[in-house]
Amino acid sequence: MGVVRRNESISTWEDSDFVQGFALLSRKDVRQDRKGRDYVDGELTDSSGRMSAKIWPDSPAIKSNFAENDFVAFKGTVHLYRDQLQVNIDHCRQVRDRDRDDGFDPELLIPSTPEDLDELGRRLEALLPGAIERPALADLVREAQRRYGDRLRVHPAAKRIHHAYRGGLLEHVVKMAELAVDVCRHYPEIDRDLVLLGVYFHDLGKLREIGAMPVNDYTLEGQLVGHITIGVEMLRECCAAVDQVSDDLRLHLEHLVVSHHGRREWGSPIEPSTPEAFVLHLIDNLDSKLNQRRDLPPTEGDLQYDKALGRTIYLGKPDKPEDKAS
Amino acid sequence: MGVVRRNESISTWEDSDFVQGFALLSRKDVRQDRKGRDYVDGELTDSSGRMSAKIWPDSPAIKSNFAENDFVAFKGTVHLYRDQLQVNIDHCRQVRDRDRDDGFDPELLIPSTPEDLDELGRRLEALLPGAIERPALADLVREAQRRYGDRLRVHPAAKRIHHAYRGGLLEHVVKMAELAVDVCRHYPEIDRDLVLLGVYFHDLGKLREIGAMPVNDYTLEGQLVGHITIGVEMLRECCAAVDQVSDDLRLHLEHLVVSHHGRREWGSPIEPSTPEAFVLHLIDNLDSKLNQRRDLPPTEGDLQYDKALGRTIYLGKPDKPEDKAS
Amino acid sequence: MGVVRRNESISTWEDSDFVQGFALLSRKDVRQDRKGRDYVDGELTDSSGRMSAKIWPDSPAIKSNFAENDFVAFKGTVHLYRDQLQVNIDHCRQVRDRDRDDGFDPELLIPSTPEDLDELGRRLEALLPGAIERPALADLVREAQRRYGDRLRVHPAAKRIHHAYRGGLLEHVVKMAELAVDVCRHYPEIDRDLVLLGVYFHDLGKLREIGAMPVNDYTLEGQLVGHITIGVEMLRECCAAVDQVSDDLRLHLEHLVVSHHGRREWGSPIEPSTPEAFVLHLIDNLDSKLNQRRDLPPTEGDLQYDKALGRTIYLGKPDKPEDKAS
Amino acid sequence: MGVVRRNESISTWEDSDFVQGFALLSRKDVRQDRKGRDYVDGELTDSSGRMSAKIWPDSPAIKSNFAENDFVAFKGTVHLYRDQLQVNIDHCRQVRDRDRDDGFDPELLIPSTPEDLDELGRRLEALLPGAIERPALADLVREAQRRYGDRLRVHPAAKRIHHAYRGGLLEHVVKMAELAVDVCRHYPEIDRDLVLLGVYFHDLGKLREIGAMPVNDYTLEGQLVGHITIGVEMLRECCAAVDQVSDDLRLHLEHLVVSHHGRREWGSPIEPSTPEAFVLHLIDNLDSKLNQRRDLPPTEGDLQYDKALGRTIYLGKPDKPEDKAS
Amino acid sequence: MGVVRRNESISTWEDSDFVQGFALLSRKDVRQDRKGRDYVDGELTDSSGRMSAKIWPDSPAIKSNFAENDFVAFKGTVHLYRDQLQVNIDHCRQVRDRDRDDGFDPELLIPSTPEDLDELGRRLEALLPGAIERPALADLVREAQRRYGDRLRVHPAAKRIHHAYRGGLLEHVVKMAELAVDVCRHYPEIDRDLVLLGVYFHDLGKLREIGAMPVNDYTLEGQLVGHITIGVEMLRECCAAVDQVSDDLRLHLEHLVVSHHGRREWGSPIEPSTPEAFVLHLIDNLDSKLNQRRDLPPTEGDLQYDKALGRTIYLGKPDKPEDKAS
Amino acid sequence: MGVVRRNESISTWEDSDFVQGFALLSRKDVRQDRKGRDYVDGELTDSSGRMSAKIWPDSPAIKSNFAENDFVAFKGTVHLYRDQLQVNIDHCRQVRDRDRDDGFDPELLIPSTPEDLDELGRRLEALLPGAIERPALADLVREAQRRYGDRLRVHPAAKRIHHAYRGGLLEHVVKMAELAVDVCRHYPEIDRDLVLLGVYFHDLGKLREIGAMPVNDYTLEGQLVGHITIGVEMLRECCAAVDQVSDDLRLHLEHLVVSHHGRREWGSPIEPSTPEAFVLHLIDNLDSKLNQRRDLPPTEGDLQYDKALGRTIYLGKPDKPEDKAS
Repeated sequence: MGVVRRNESISTWEDSDFVQGFALLSRKDVRQDRKGRDYVDGELTDSSGRMSAKIWPDSPAIKSNFAENDFVAFKGTVHLYRDQLQVNIDHCRQVRDRDRDDGFDPELLIPSTPEDLDELGRRLEALLPGAIERPALADLVREAQRRYGDRLRVHPAAKRIHHAYRGGLLEHVVKMAELAVDVCRHYPEIDRDLVLLGVYFHDLGKLREIGAMPVNDYTLEGQLVGHITIGVEMLRECCAAVDQVSDDLRLHLEHLVVSHHGRREWGSPIEPSTPEAFVLHLIDNLDSKLNQRRDLPPTEGDLQYDKALGRTIYLGKPDKPEDKAS
Repeated sequence: MGVVRRNESISTWEDSDFVQGFALLSRKDVRQDRKGRDYVDGELTDSSGRMSAKIWPDSPAIKSNFAENDFVAFKGTVHLYRDQLQVNIDHCRQVRDRDRDDGFDPELLIPSTPEDLDELGRRLEALLPGAIERPALADLVREAQRRYGDRLRVHPAAKRIHHAYRGGLLEHVVKMAELAVDVCRHYPEIDRDLVLLGVYFHDLGKLREIGAMPVNDYTLEGQLVGHITIGVEMLRECCAAVDQVSDDLRLHLEHLVVSHHGRREWGSPIEPSTPEAFVLHLIDNLDSKLNQRRDLPPTEGDLQYDKALGRTIYLGKPDKPEDKAS
Repeated sequence: MGVVRRNESISTWEDSDFVQGFALLSRKDVRQDRKGRDYVDGELTDSSGRMSAKIWPDSPAIKSNFAENDFVAFKGTVHLYRDQLQVNIDHCRQVRDRDRDDGFDPELLIPSTPEDLDELGRRLEALLPGAIERPALADLVREAQRRYGDRLRVHPAAKRIHHAYRGGLLEHVVKMAELAVDVCRHYPEIDRDLVLLGVYFHDLGKLREIGAMPVNDYTLEGQLVGHITIGVEMLRECCAAVDQVSDDLRLHLEHLVVSHHGRREWGSPIEPSTPEAFVLHLIDNLDSKLNQRRDLPPTEGDLQYDKALGRTIYLGKPDKPEDKAS
Repeated sequence: MGVVRRNESISTWEDSDFVQGFALLSRKDVRQDRKGRDYVDGELTDSSGRMSAKIWPDSPAIKSNFAENDFVAFKGTVHLYRDQLQVNIDHCRQVRDRDRDDGFDPELLIPSTPEDLDELGRRLEALLPGAIERPALADLVREAQRRYGDRLRVHPAAKRIHHAYRGGLLEHVVKMAELAVDVCRHYPEIDRDLVLLGVYFHDLGKLREIGAMPVNDYTLEGQLVGHITIGVEMLRECCAAVDQVSDDLRLHLEHLVVSHHGRREWGSPIEPSTPEAFVLHLIDNLDSKLNQRRDLPPTEGDLQYDKALGRTIYLGKPDKPEDKAS
Repeated sequence: MGVVRRNESISTWEDSDFVQGFALLSRKDVRQDRKGRDYVDGELTDSSGRMSAKIWPDSPAIKSNFAENDFVAFKGTVHLYRDQLQVNIDHCRQVRDRDRDDGFDPELLIPSTPEDLDELGRRLEALLPGAIERPALADLVREAQRRYGDRLRVHPAAKRIHHAYRGGLLEHVVKMAELAVDVCRHYPEIDRDLVLLGVYFHDLGKLREIGAMPVNDYTLEGQLVGHITIGVEMLRECCAAVDQVSDDLRLHLEHLVVSHHGRREWGSPIEPSTPEAFVLHLIDNLDSKLNQRRDLPPTEGDLQYDKALGRTIYLGKPDKPEDKAS
Repeated sequence: MGVVRRNESISTWEDSDFVQGFALLSRKDVRQDRKGRDYVDGELTDSSGRMSAKIWPDSPAIKSNFAENDFVAFKGTVHLYRDQLQVNIDHCRQVRDRDRDDGFDPELLIPSTPEDLDELGRRLEALLPGAIERPALADLVREAQRRYGDRLRVHPAAKRIHHAYRGGLLEHVVKMAELAVDVCRHYPEIDRDLVLLGVYFHDLGKLREIGAMPVNDYTLEGQLVGHITIGVEMLRECCAAVDQVSDDLRLHLEHLVVSHHGRREWGSPIEPSTPEAFVLHLIDNLDSKLNQRRDLPPTEGDLQYDKALGRTIYLGKPDKPEDKAS
């Protein structure tokens, strides 16, 4: 009943399958069995998901040389153990350059945004700086992109909860920017430039708060200072480099970064005090909450338990018209 | 230095002006002076604002017949007393039908939405039911409009805080609906029909919670039951009348009404548990907060103290480009 | 040392006993052992308690046909495993009608109130409608009993925490009603009719919020709308059917249902605003808290850890006089 | 239109009345008018209520000798000033012993319970110690009554909020005790002796926390230590004097005093951890809340604004049957 | 009974005094009397206190040229009005340079620390940088002093609540530094350098958050960004200028500034996560609370009502030994 | 690779070691294996730490006579099981008197303060009563030491969180007293006597709230009454015995005990209302927080997860100068 799967996504593996390919060894703990022999309790990850992995003492792989967070080439067999699939590894080694010929591609092995990164990049540029009216602010975005654009492109937006994957931060910024343009159309008293700049900078401090994928854990700076204060510093450095942004304008932008969590107890030392800051906080909230939904593991029927919120979410769309559901 | 003002808005009155016209007598307290003679401590209101009014014992108006919340024809003089303007009334009587020839128009005398009510009505219809895909839900909107459309058109959305004026509820619903359409375009997984129906029904209970303008105080039903529970009942009655809305669909709509305040401590007995309920709560929050901004009295410079939030709001738009500010 | 127990309560089973009888199969998960063979990890429940149950691959029962939440006839042996008793099942099948001759009685197999249901029914009727002074309200109770009396008789009052068993809701209502009569005697300014009606309707929405025993999980309506809002609808439908209840009276009753949780953060969108609503909230609190005590599993000495409250409860009654303790 | 009122309650006074009698001078502030002459801004209080009082510079009373919180004999005239009644005092002096012949009775001049104090005393004794089963606990009550009975009889139960009048503490204890007997009948697992003793001692510390009427302000001990900790000490002293109360019993009683506010943030350092403590907390809550209702000043219609709760209370009893309302 | 007071502190003025000297005109509102003539409702302030001031229409001063927050030379008479002293101004003009010969000294006219500023400066230098062990950190302090030392010397520490006077910030820093040295002696595991640097920088952002005396209101930057985020920027700029502070060290210092309010809801976006951060938060709390005590206005006996805490403070020192009290 | 360790601390044991010596058997649960044979799942503790211990059915120790919380003599072998060290016991018996010759010393077997107890005693006496100025208060300390000194010397300060070891309470008191002396030097308005007495008495109630080591669980009195109320009683008894402490002084001391947790929700029924009470609360907070740090198990790098605070603590001291680190 098991089949042979070569270079197939982890999410497709089933009980008894023989599997072979490339993965990220996202965890590696060396343990001892009752007889004192070493075995490895680890985990394989690719962009589709993750699975527990064991390298038993009698596996040839036990003597290979590889470390946690290495990309590895592996062979093994999938088993069901206590209702969970796990893979017993027979062969395992670090990848080599020439593995690319056999299908190794690191981009396929870490969880990534479902969107196309290039396309996201173009959508960003169309609005930031594309839609900015004040020349000084457009220059500010260009300066920031020059400094951070490459990292913004691939960074996750969070360690967990929402957009916790490669490209997640860029996706979050682009969606919020597009949403901001539409929201501002309904409220002409809102200064759209400011909201868009707020969207760009609000989470930029995460580039230093959270490590890049695949590691994405908090950095020491993240733990001690936090992305809000870091983000203000990054904003100030960009303003200083551009040198045409007036002080009042800079203060307003700093306020957007500082206040975007909306309340002190949610981590903003200053609470939203401009209409633009309210808009930024609310569209950030909207995009995060909805993305969070999408990331949750499927559960029974139309229900999904959301640990962060502590309640069950209902995803049913009763009587949805045909044409729309297709 | 005082001028004669006939049928001019209260907001234009200045110290020493002689004023004449029509107003709502929004407060009337009969008091006694040191000599035991009656005088009236009251308040005149029109759509532009309100001013304290006195009818002294020696004013001919003291013997006229009129009551609190009457529309009145008046003559008087404006004075500065303890840094506040007030008007001393010489003549005052209830309005008569033929006063319309002299410019009496009740619509001008109560605070109203700055938008045109007919135009708002057309914008509502274009989306609700105009943009609804499920025929049963479009019928549901039509049924609700048949029952409540006239009152929805002129009701305030709140006793204070936001949209607390004639037409405020309709304006709030229309802006949220238009915003919802744009937001849903960015999140195809959201069921737009449901969000739009949620927009329509979420505050409908306010028709019974708050009295119509000019009285807009809480009704006994508002105090004892509250607009959320009332709104669910109104929704159920409409569903029962239409009779094609499935139970699942109705439950989802009830959920949208019940949960739209977002948190138990903000008055929702059940918290948002569908993606559509999150969207509804957040766009309600957005439109209320921004309207609230607009209603605040102007203060010094670009600063405005917001009593509901307990902090000062900054309304500056630094370096705003010319073409946009105009 | 094990004995043979036929048709004895689960709470009496001990290590090594051979047991035979009828039970509710309250959980059935099919799993695979290391060799890939199916086994069942399940749970047997009767009114006295519950025990983990295993059907191993070599048990004849493994091929029988039965499902989760079926009543089953079984044979098995009790073992101590990791400090917990569990039963290994040898035979297991769905019950048949003629099993009643051998002692099968579904009423014995689900947790039930210790009170006699018929007696509870009579006590209810004596007060509701028996003690109601306004004819319209007595009729209202009769109408509600006609509609919901049968389900009220057997429904649990909660999914967990308090009165979470068959007949629990009726027991809760009867005890509160009897308590209400006594409390009102001490406060003549309280309108007893209203409190008693509040007692009757306050949790009635649980008939639709929670499934009947043995399933008693939240329904979709329970999750999306909640028993408070459901209860108001049930009350309104009864009022409409009776058609003599004045609007003011109905609003007051709705208020009792809406506010009975006492605070917004405890789930009441409107907080108690009449003296009767305070009384209802407090006697509901009293009866729930005391019943909760009674349901807790016994622990060492006179101490009992209460997970819901997060603290240890002391049940000692020092120096209790003989005659009373007996 | 004014009448002459001699020895009539303040609550009966109306505009223009000439009034004469005895009162408590509950406030006396000496101020200066524009010409630098002294006048008194004060307040007269009797058991029926209070009224603002002025002694103008030209009043003969201005030279009399009396102090704040003195009982005084007075003559004056009532006036309406800014919608409030106030009395202008012509004569005012401290009371003398022989004033008792003219109707002076201090008991009539401070706010008191509407109940008869002797009758309350008998009702207390019937239950405490009358209904106590354990001889040691009955003795404990007798010892406490011997020590504190006289002061308990006349002390207020609070500085404001509930039972804030002479005899208020006794009334509160008696009503709770009678209620406790009824509640315990419904829950035989509750140890009634303990609840009754808890009722007796729970607020006893207020004898030292709050001064006796008419002063009833916080004492220094009340401010620094609080009635809960004081009450535990009073209980311990009584236990030590009686000398038959076992340690376990005493600890349980101490727990009842310590925990009766129900939550840490409401002032109980230890939260209720016995069933008896839950009962005590809830009936204390019930009696306080309902008494609080009764003390509120009447407002328009059936509505009453409750400052402590921050919401409007509705006191209507719709369609109350004739025989009951009479 | 009034005396002539020349160049005496406002706190010494009494009813009927004729006063002359220099003061800060801390408020100036131009109003109109009943006859439409301008008068000034203002306030005089010096380092000893403040008093309401009136310039009536017939005062020669009414035509003088001076503005709010000017230092003025004045003459006037003190009166008691509604239990409050106020001064009626006869002459008033801006100060001139040669007024210094007559006793004008701006330092005497704004509320100031009771400590000597030079002495505070020496005490600061002895510890910061005097007691710093790491040369890089001592340089960091020197750099900061070079940049901010002059303003630190005279700035208030708060708009209200604690140290809200000239030199308040320096006094607060010096006292905390001296306290920190003592506390660290008891806990050798604490890195004293870090705590001292934290003391220096923790409130430095107030130089930009609050205006200098006499204006000390929030600046726009204070309102929009807040002193915590501003302080981190000032720290970073100093670190960049010094250029020997390692990144880890800088992060730790930033953490001290960011976390010194102790909790998110008190305004720290990151909560204390190093032992040094706990120490800093607690000694800041200690010095602020105790200074706050000292600033409160005296009230009756040993009691003092503290509005910020919402409770009465008892300042009695019972039975204090003679030698210590002297 | 394993070595033989005789009378060595548990913290030194490693995989495969053969160990022999004395320990506290801090847990003993008898369980059954699959074959129904008894084995012991227990835990050995000494002052250096604790380790899981197993006595298998075939161990000679299984038949020995010993109970939970006995001191035992044992022999066994250390193994790594699921990444945790555990010891398999071969021999185990209760200690005998003559074991002291072989190195048994109960003081070595329970977690203790790292400080020398005699030295702590001397440091206490130097301040309490040594530094007390009022003779009555010095006598009060002597009386308390006479009553409680012996138990104070060895009691833990808490069940967990901080100072949860033998001598912990004394260490906490001594450190706080020494800290108090230094803090008071900076604030001469603080009454040092009162703070020192507050330090002595603030946690004294823990002598009755928590059992002595090694048992240190809550007593029934601890659970029902709590150390704050107990502590006030102990203070009162000492005051009564000394008989020269004035009532005002005693009230102030009681206030210090009652309020030392700082807030109602942290367990103080009355919040700090004297400057001395603020000081006491803050230095208690400081010493507890810092001791808590020291007790945490070491984790990776300079990071340490603190469960009580729910966040990671960073213990790095970047670039610490050589001389100081040594």
